[in-house]
Amino acid sequence: MTDDTAGDSGAGSDSRPVVYDLAPDCTAADVETGALYHAVVNGVVDYGVFVDISDNVSGLVHESNLDDSYDVGDSFVVELVEIKENGDIAFDEAGVDDYRTETVDHEPDITSIASLSTGTDATIEGRVAQIKQTGGPTIFHVADDTGIVSCAAFDEAGVRAYPDVDLEDLVRIDGHVETHDGTTQVEVSSLSELDGERAETVRERLDAAFEERAEPHTVDPLVEWPAFEKLRDDLRDVARLLRQTVLEGRPIRVRHHADGDGMCASIPVQLALENFIADVHENPDAPRHLFKRLPSKAPFYEMEDVTRDLNFALEGQARHGQKLPLLLMLDNGSTEEDVPAYQNLAHYDMPIAVVDHHHPDPEAVEPLLDAHVNPYLYDEDYRITTGMMCVELARMIDPDITDELRHVPAVAGLADRSKAEVMDEFVELAEQQGYDRDDLGDIGEALDYAAHWLRYSEGKALVNDVLNVGCDDDTRHRELVEFLSESAERDVADQLDAVEDHVEHERLKSDAHLYTVDLDNFAHRFTYPAPGKTTGELHDRKVRETGEPVITIGYGPDFAVLRSDGVRLDIPQMVAELNDEVKGGGVSGGGHLVVGSIKFVKGMREEVIDSLVEKMAEADIDDELSSTAALD
Amino acid sequence: MTDDTAGDSGAGSDSRPVVYDLAPDCTAADVETGALYHAVVNGVVDYGVFVDISDNVSGLVHESNLDDSYDVGDSFVVELVEIKENGDIAFDEAGVDDYRTETVDHEPDITSIASLSTGTDATIEGRVAQIKQTGGPTIFHVADDTGIVSCAAFDEAGVRAYPDVDLEDLVRIDGHVETHDGTTQVEVSSLSELDGERAETVRERLDAAFEERAEPHTVDPLVEWPAFEKLRDDLRDVARLLRQTVLEGRPIRVRHHADGDGMCASIPVQLALENFIADVHENPDAPRHLFKRLPSKAPFYEMEDVTRDLNFALEGQARHGQKLPLLLMLDNGSTEEDVPAYQNLAHYDMPIAVVDHHHPDPEAVEPLLDAHVNPYLYDEDYRITTGMMCVELARMIDPDITDELRHVPAVAGLADRSKAEVMDEFVELAEQQGYDRDDLGDIGEALDYAAHWLRYSEGKALVNDVLNVGCDDDTRHRELVEFLSESAERDVADQLDAVEDHVEHERLKSDAHLYTVDLDNFAHRFTYPAPGKTTGELHDRKVRETGEPVITIGYGPDFAVLRSDGVRLDIPQMVAELNDEVKGGGVSGGGHLVVGSIKFVKGMREEVIDSLVEKMAEADIDDELSSTAALD
Amino acid sequence: MTDDTAGDSGAGSDSRPVVYDLAPDCTAADVETGALYHAVVNGVVDYGVFVDISDNVSGLVHESNLDDSYDVGDSFVVELVEIKENGDIAFDEAGVDDYRTETVDHEPDITSIASLSTGTDATIEGRVAQIKQTGGPTIFHVADDTGIVSCAAFDEAGVRAYPDVDLEDLVRIDGHVETHDGTTQVEVSSLSELDGERAETVRERLDAAFEERAEPHTVDPLVEWPAFEKLRDDLRDVARLLRQTVLEGRPIRVRHHADGDGMCASIPVQLALENFIADVHENPDAPRHLFKRLPSKAPFYEMEDVTRDLNFALEGQARHGQKLPLLLMLDNGSTEEDVPAYQNLAHYDMPIAVVDHHHPDPEAVEPLLDAHVNPYLYDEDYRITTGMMCVELARMIDPDITDELRHVPAVAGLADRSKAEVMDEFVELAEQQGYDRDDLGDIGEALDYAAHWLRYSEGKALVNDVLNVGCDDDTRHRELVEFLSESAERDVADQLDAVEDHVEHERLKSDAHLYTVDLDNFAHRFTYPAPGKTTGELHDRKVRETGEPVITIGYGPDFAVLRSDGVRLDIPQMVAELNDEVKGGGVSGGGHLVVGSIKFVKGMREEVIDSLVEKMAEADIDDELSSTAALD
Repeated sequence: MTDDTAGDSGAGSDSRPVVYDLAPDCTAADVETGALYHAVVNGVVDYGVFVDISDNVSGLVHESNLDDSYDVGDSFVVELVEIKENGDIAFDEAGVDDYRTETVDHEPDITSIASLSTGTDATIEGRVAQIKQTGGPTIFHVADDTGIVSCAAFDEAGVRAYPDVDLEDLVRIDGHVETHDGTTQVEVSSLSELDGERAETVRERLDAAFEERAEPHTVDPLVEWPAFEKLRDDLRDVARLLRQTVLEGRPIRVRHHADGDGMCASIPVQLALENFIADVHENPDAPRHLFKRLPSKAPFYEMEDVTRDLNFALEGQARHGQKLPLLLMLDNGSTEEDVPAYQNLAHYDMPIAVVDHHHPDPEAVEPLLDAHVNPYLYDEDYRITTGMMCVELARMIDPDITDELRHVPAVAGLADRSKAEVMDEFVELAEQQGYDRDDLGDIGEALDYAAHWLRYSEGKALVNDVLNVGCDDDTRHRELVEFLSESAERDVADQLDAVEDHVEHERLKSDAHLYTVDLDNFAHRFTYPAPGKTTGELHDRKVRETGEPVITIGYGPDFAVLRSDGVRLDIPQMVAELNDEVKGGGVSGGGHLVVGSIKFVKGMREEVIDSLVEKMAEADIDDELSSTAALD
Repeated sequence: MTDDTAGDSGAGSDSRPVVYDLAPDCTAADVETGALYHAVVNGVVDYGVFVDISDNVSGLVHESNLDDSYDVGDSFVVELVEIKENGDIAFDEAGVDDYRTETVDHEPDITSIASLSTGTDATIEGRVAQIKQTGGPTIFHVADDTGIVSCAAFDEAGVRAYPDVDLEDLVRIDGHVETHDGTTQVEVSSLSELDGERAETVRERLDAAFEERAEPHTVDPLVEWPAFEKLRDDLRDVARLLRQTVLEGRPIRVRHHADGDGMCASIPVQLALENFIADVHENPDAPRHLFKRLPSKAPFYEMEDVTRDLNFALEGQARHGQKLPLLLMLDNGSTEEDVPAYQNLAHYDMPIAVVDHHHPDPEAVEPLLDAHVNPYLYDEDYRITTGMMCVELARMIDPDITDELRHVPAVAGLADRSKAEVMDEFVELAEQQGYDRDDLGDIGEALDYAAHWLRYSEGKALVNDVLNVGCDDDTRHRELVEFLSESAERDVADQLDAVEDHVEHERLKSDAHLYTVDLDNFAHRFTYPAPGKTTGELHDRKVRETGEPVITIGYGPDFAVLRSDGVRLDIPQMVAELNDEVKGGGVSGGGHLVVGSIKFVKGMREEVIDSLVEKMAEADIDDELSSTAALD
Repeated sequence: MTDDTAGDSGAGSDSRPVVYDLAPDCTAADVETGALYHAVVNGVVDYGVFVDISDNVSGLVHESNLDDSYDVGDSFVVELVEIKENGDIAFDEAGVDDYRTETVDHEPDITSIASLSTGTDATIEGRVAQIKQTGGPTIFHVADDTGIVSCAAFDEAGVRAYPDVDLEDLVRIDGHVETHDGTTQVEVSSLSELDGERAETVRERLDAAFEERAEPHTVDPLVEWPAFEKLRDDLRDVARLLRQTVLEGRPIRVRHHADGDGMCASIPVQLALENFIADVHENPDAPRHLFKRLPSKAPFYEMEDVTRDLNFALEGQARHGQKLPLLLMLDNGSTEEDVPAYQNLAHYDMPIAVVDHHHPDPEAVEPLLDAHVNPYLYDEDYRITTGMMCVELARMIDPDITDELRHVPAVAGLADRSKAEVMDEFVELAEQQGYDRDDLGDIGEALDYAAHWLRYSEGKALVNDVLNVGCDDDTRHRELVEFLSESAERDVADQLDAVEDHVEHERLKSDAHLYTVDLDNFAHRFTYPAPGKTTGELHDRKVRETGEPVITIGYGPDFAVLRSDGVRLDIPQMVAELNDEVKGGGVSGGGHLVVGSIKFVKGMREEVIDSLVEKMAEADIDDELSSTAALD
């Protein structure tokens, strides 16, 4: 080649034709019809000359397409005109004089991660999902659209191999596929960061493939419910986000309300995500390393919890090279009180998704969230419980668990005393699975009771047995529910007995009944039920007994829990007024219109409660309004 | 063989004789005298014919026992008449025509687990004790009567091998014995579940062997004590149950009272069981994985504790494929207050054993227990402390630790102020080991003090040093006891100084002294000694000072601790009455006749304490009755 | 050899010359010029005879130096006269008759641990730093002056190899250097305890080398500050002790005050020590295994904390064969209140070092400490903050981190409101790094806020980001500090708003203002800021508002926090008087002259506070005295 103009290549203004100079190991996969190649003659026959354009790619230039005659070893430029079905390649002499040359490296055969086979050599391409430095090799977890595999690269013991490669980089890895502790692992012989056009191509391919694989499953609703359908698209978006998160190898951390509905929400999502993680990763320990579920006692995301979560995430990053997790808030997380915690996370790469049915403050929280599903955003309300939403969400992630979940919406609804118009249909659905209405209520009580004693523990095996999701022993499920729900009922009865003689009653001028009780002095403490539930149970009893408008206040040294039925309250408004009027009361809190809780400083309790009662006395009767479910 | 009637075999009604058709690999171990076999002639000599009944089993049919003449290759039926000492086998021609054939597979040589030898192939038979799925192979822990070994079976990475095999199944495993991370492990080449007759045979053999190996050691009492001997058989039953539990590979979880006697009970049992576990298992980490000791602060098994225990057990099952543990309650667990916790466990395969010397409610607890030892069940009482019982229990499990334990009954007895008739002998026994009476008292105080600050931690190394059981440094033991017991005494003195000015005194009409003190207002809080011990120490001081009948009440916001000496109280009765009489008092609790503690709601404290004092004022004097020990 | 007198060797009185009998494997490294050796003739030439004194050491006795003639195989005694540069050795015939023989073993080539090379055989000598029994081999961690390596010795699975070898023993190990899980490990072929002279030689060499390597780096002060220089030598001693501790393989456990200055002290020391540990050990996990930092909420070392620390240390010893750790107390630990905790450790091999700037009780603590640095010991005071000291300490351990630390003394000083004369210079230094004074104050507030919510967690990644030490993202640092410091300010403002209406004011007869506030009743509880900081912030506000002498008391049920400015108080004296005068008050506590906190029993609060106020009323005005910094 006398005329080589490589070096010019890349000059965008160069309008001369490109002739490719293939590297010797290039294969048919590296060529395309219509392109020009430098060729060398390797044989001369009657009907033309055979040429090589690489060690592996040869073909005929028919004499009809030859302008000159050539001997073996001569070079000239050819155009590839056809690759036949049998693999034969036909060239024409190109007859170009003024051209520029571009060299072409062999593009190896890329093996998809899911089809790696032990004992073979392979080349993979993917995105770096985790970089863990061990005492020996550096372990890169690499994700393509078919799965995630760990790749061990060794430079020096304990020294980071390929230190320029970061999380999220696109890489190509050559290596030998081995079995290490029984999991597939690629022993890296070379690792290179993709760049330029190749990177772009791979990025586009992976993104498209991820997007396709992340696509949630389409599932038929368990019951027909038009109101619910308004939320379905947003739930699909969350399902897609969660599947995408798994595909990227990012951990997921769930915080959920530690009550019946919160359990009905989080357990199905956990099962679905653990299944999907196991499916994506080679490593059977992956679900344990990449998924954590944590119950929250408070009705909002506390600073202490978020500090612990952030610290845990940063430790996982430092020690295991994991990405920071996505945070999924279930039956919790929609309100302004969650904002400080979210702000704490905003400085880190931690996406946040919320599925909640508590009255939301979308203006406050949404700027900090990546996804937010809440029935109030669609003019629906708490009657669509988080458990109901999450059963659909879980099915979109893994539809195969549907049969295990048919009874869950009914449990969630009864636990939160939902008045959803489809409650009867949910119950019927559960009955078809062999649960009667009492069973379903008992399961909810049992979940609540177990959650109380588990405190901050996940208690996966236990609560799965109670909810009968991911539980393999029906008898154990039934016995456990019976025992726990009976214990819960007994403890509630004991608590109500204890406070009964201390409940104060007055008739407000609106004619509503007001019941107040000093829970600190007259309820058993540090036991089940806690003050919130105690107040709720007392209130429900009084509503049943009187059949009339009732307000109930259970108070402790520095808090009060409020419930009302048939009275037009506006608790958030009251809190604002109290904070204004009771100087130094330190009043905060809120809730919904007719249900809520407030905090204040201990020494001002009397003033606060008195003012509160005064305000309540002025409230109008409104038979439509009920707190019986809105608190949970 | 022209006449084969296999296929008929198994027909119970078939009365024809059985002729066995041995598989080629059968050995002399597979045959027995008197049985009939299909034989093939392999040699003809003057004095008879040599026949093969398998590749490995041959012998002579003497011509005197031959009815026909045969050539090499001929088949006929023989009876095995004798296996000589040198291994030669003599047959007779059987001369049967009408028979049925049963095929016999070679029964391989079964190697006992304890005699597995690295680098060899072996066949073992045993019961599956644990099935742990790893990222690679499935690990079956298999127990025979000589030990427990882990066997790695690999199907596909992270996929359960032999999914039909369950815990407790009887299996035969062929494999290669290897050393994995230094522990013996069998690489499984085949694993089959035993069934039918073979399973029955193995089951019987294992059960008999387990039973024999589980048999506790017979130990001479440390001191002659007829009262104690009444309990010995029941202690043997517990020892047998615990040894059986270890042999089966089931974990053991101990909950014990976190005081001096509780420590003296649990530390020896821990040492004995850890030794036995190490003996049974190949794996030196086994004691750590299979034994947990947890101190309990409450005088009964709390719902929170049992929920945590159950959750932990279920996690161990889910993650490590362990059996659910046996729960051993020490110096705790005999009373009605433990029932709700036990009921919580009743739905799971978790045996429960109790060794306690608190006043029991056998009707309430025994239906839920697998074993229950308590001196009250034999008309003895708290003077037989749990530490005394558990020293014997530990020796029955591992008699080799006897020398380390000789001083422990004295420590236990002094810690619980036991008035056992053999206390002097126990002290003498300890003196022979170099402890004087003061040392023993100091050890008890030091244990109590350490337990206080350890809270929920096991603190194994520390408490072993204090008790000098499993401690290798006598000087450290002595210095530590001196420091801790002096700290305890100083803190007790500080606490009594603090409350002294606030103790109220009155003389009851029975002439007994009544001392009451508001511990919430006048004792240091969150420090040593806690309210129970503070009340006890105050009471003891008053008994010493007055030499007369004394009742002491230490109360907090919602509880009171009661002690009395020389007064005929019946506290359980009083509690029942108070609960009746003080409306909304929420009174509960109990204890023994003359010692106990009660709980009530905070706001009713005054009414409850007043009523209590009123009742006490009416109690008669009885010099025999003393609380000084019964509380612990 | 007819004349062997071995056996006499070692007799000090024997004045006969020594002739060495070399073991066959001795090399040139085992011989020296001027010494006498038993030699055997292996060749006779014209110009003399060639002799062997071992298999590896031969040379010529020139005929000019031969008295007799010898044949091959003859033995006689030679003197080694010269080892030439090319390795040739020249001998003389020694011509001694009356001598004693000493045998000489081959001294193998000792490889230094840092230069071990995988795949080779090597002999190392060092001190045993850790002995960990695994299920397989016993792992000895051996330290020489160049590093620490793990050596695996296998006797039987799970059985302690070389059971006579203890921690701290000097050993020689022959083995094969391998890579195990990527870390260098010596597979032990033989291990022997060094004794006698050899042990002494090695001990001296190692001690000298350790001493040299332990020697702290000499660093230039960040700012000129004569007062600080008085402490430098003592800080060097601590740096030396810490480096020595790392070199010995002993773990380090840091307890530090969980506030801004305490963080500024402990984070740099952690970074420096983790770097040094990584440098000394082959294993990259070593820093995590050998270093722990724990924040302490209390202003002294609590019994519960020390019990937990001791228990943790003993577990590490039992489970991992680790040495017991050195305890490093930072910004904490100088006072009498720490004594009981230190006494608890005194029975164990746990060195204790303290760097603190709280008013010390050297007579009480120093007998229990191995090192103690405190500015008061040099007539300086709290203005030299612990953070300032520890930045220098960290630089002495690892000077390479200096650039990361230049802003830290300013943060520490502002956080503790230090009035050090060089504060401006420290701030200027930080400004050169791009921080302005407000940034520095914000970092301190942010650290304090993060520490509050982290409670007992280390929170390494988070606090490193906040302090910007070991943090790789400047933007994240800035955003995080902004968010946390703003949250802290908001919460402080909320708290002061809450208490404002409840602050009581009186004018003392000294004309000082006295502000008192009931924090239990009127401050928000269980939130930031806690009572101590709340009192401090209130006090600072009042000092600013009045510009006059101010005393502030914030009290809870059983404690009070005291701050004063411009008043000559002597709080320790007051506490002593109160304890005397208020019978049954249980008053304890203390602090400095003008700042402190006291505890008492709940029921005597009124009496205690009244007496306290009375005493304060009598105190003189002294404008020099200020509490604004001394509390932290």
